[in-house]
Amino acid sequence: MKHKIALIGCGTVGQGFLDILDKKAGELKNKFGFEAKVVAISDKLKGSLLVPKGIDIKKVLGLLGQGKNLADYAPEKARQGAALDPLEMIERCDADIIAELTYTDIKTAEPATSYIKKALQTGKHVVTSNKGPAALHYPELRDLAKKKKVHFRIEGTVMSGTPVFTLAESGFAGNTVKEVKGILNGTTNFILSKMELDDMDYREALALAQKLGYAEADPTADVEGFDALAKIVILSNVILEGNIRPSDAKREGITGISRDMVLAAKQEGFRYKLIAQTKKEGGKITAAVSPQKLPLSDPLAGVMGAQNALTFDLDLLGKVTIQGPGAGKTETGHAILQDMLAIHRDLS
Amino acid sequence: MKHKIALIGCGTVGQGFLDILDKKAGELKNKFGFEAKVVAISDKLKGSLLVPKGIDIKKVLGLLGQGKNLADYAPEKARQGAALDPLEMIERCDADIIAELTYTDIKTAEPATSYIKKALQTGKHVVTSNKGPAALHYPELRDLAKKKKVHFRIEGTVMSGTPVFTLAESGFAGNTVKEVKGILNGTTNFILSKMELDDMDYREALALAQKLGYAEADPTADVEGFDALAKIVILSNVILEGNIRPSDAKREGITGISRDMVLAAKQEGFRYKLIAQTKKEGGKITAAVSPQKLPLSDPLAGVMGAQNALTFDLDLLGKVTIQGPGAGKTETGHAILQDMLAIHRDLS
Repeated sequence: MKHKIALIGCGTVGQGFLDILDKKAGELKNKFGFEAKVVAISDKLKGSLLVPKGIDIKKVLGLLGQGKNLADYAPEKARQGAALDPLEMIERCDADIIAELTYTDIKTAEPATSYIKKALQTGKHVVTSNKGPAALHYPELRDLAKKKKVHFRIEGTVMSGTPVFTLAESGFAGNTVKEVKGILNGTTNFILSKMELDDMDYREALALAQKLGYAEADPTADVEGFDALAKIVILSNVILEGNIRPSDAKREGITGISRDMVLAAKQEGFRYKLIAQTKKEGGKITAAVSPQKLPLSDPLAGVMGAQNALTFDLDLLGKVTIQGPGAGKTETGHAILQDMLAIHRDLS
Repeated sequence: MKHKIALIGCGTVGQGFLDILDKKAGELKNKFGFEAKVVAISDKLKGSLLVPKGIDIKKVLGLLGQGKNLADYAPEKARQGAALDPLEMIERCDADIIAELTYTDIKTAEPATSYIKKALQTGKHVVTSNKGPAALHYPELRDLAKKKKVHFRIEGTVMSGTPVFTLAESGFAGNTVKEVKGILNGTTNFILSKMELDDMDYREALALAQKLGYAEADPTADVEGFDALAKIVILSNVILEGNIRPSDAKREGITGISRDMVLAAKQEGFRYKLIAQTKKEGGKITAAVSPQKLPLSDPLAGVMGAQNALTFDLDLLGKVTIQGPGAGKTETGHAILQDMLAIHRDLS
């Protein structure tokens, strides 16, 4: 089956996905019968391109790698779509699947939510790694997708390409999930690891994380727990089938954790982790993000550096933990492919 | 969709599966549209039963719980199939799916392999938790299933219901798996954990494992690494698409590991684990089971007691580890259900 794909947003994740699609094309066709052509790309900074017969991925990646605009892809006359805004592009392009890969705005979830709605309303499947729409509007978007008989898939929103939603959907099918608990922010886990293992204070560890590109210049979203909060809200609404908003969950970051606290915990055989957790009891969801002292025997205590991990508490299987990457160009690019392969399996 | 199921073997796993099927019937129907009736059960010790209109699961579980024979299910005249051997039962019963749940014979893989072949040849899907056929004949049985256009699924053979094959098949789709490495035998992991944490010597720890039911009276299959070997051969042939036999892999158990070695490793910041690993390089599989000293930073080092875990090394995602139960009545029963739900998804 040949899928027609449009990318709305073509930054790190978009380019990571295109790179995989290019390198793995032969393997994906032989192994899964999955073929894809990219018919449109729209990026706020890099311009737009509409090529119904299929875009040359290598050429696009080459241009973007040199910092050029998509306008350089073809001479003006041969180029289409340069004047289309993303909403027009989504409506007019002939894609079956829209990959919504614009930046995350966790307060408004825009413009991504408008893009996703437009795509679903025009009968296109949507895959996204954007936490905004997933955290603020999942139930509404899921219902719209159901009504339009298309997929709305979000594997990349939590733990990048580590397949948490696929695992819950396929591997745990038949279980009731009682609780989900984990380390969902690599930046804070890196900082806490450095404070304990390399005896740094919070400021030093943060500065190192910023230097290595793990933390933003303004680290608030990570260190105050907003990023982990968005993810635990997504897990609450997708896996526990809840309908909560970020304001329904308690949130505490790691800025109150001192080196002395970390070292004292270590002496007692414990380790501080920023834990996001959610559980459902009597139909009610309780979700929170907070620093917790875990015993070293907890599978989450051993998760060091920028890794992420989630423990599921299941009625039939008991506790199952998955640990893997929580970010990265190729890792999140793979999440997009994974969602497309899930759509492909369903349609094949 | 309503599936007709036959159980060949109805010991711990079979009864665990029936119990789940009974308790979750409503939920499975509402959530997945999965309905099932059990039309036949054949067990070497407990007798046979053929009921085309569907067996009353509660009644069967009640009888078996009281140590009674399946002959007590219905008066002689109403009973069918009592005289059928398993091969006849597989051929004659009207099941779509055969759950092969007889005992594991890791040397001959019989009679399970004959049962599975008969089922596949007569066009029935097969799910099994039996390590014998999966370790000795996977490529042949997979090809037969493909030829007959039916499923042959084996989730329960490695890590019971912890969904390793489902994860690899769906969650990692698109990745090349470079290496699989893990702790696949709960008994030896329990013994090594006790030696380190409770300062026991090997004999004491083994005796405790036997007392708690984790180890057999003859513990050879576990402590000499045969059980882990069968599982790593299965992973080699299924996930790395190899075609190796147990005799192709090196095997060393834990009987050479003394308390002194365990404690010396601990002092150096290491921990002994019985590690099963397999990798593919240049088309060639190298698989082995051996005790290894892991640094405590390895996700596998933190896996204590009877838990199991596997680390996958993937070209796109890097390292992803899954940790969960490795045995248990409900856990392995769930593996059987999981495989049936995968068949159901494919047919729906």
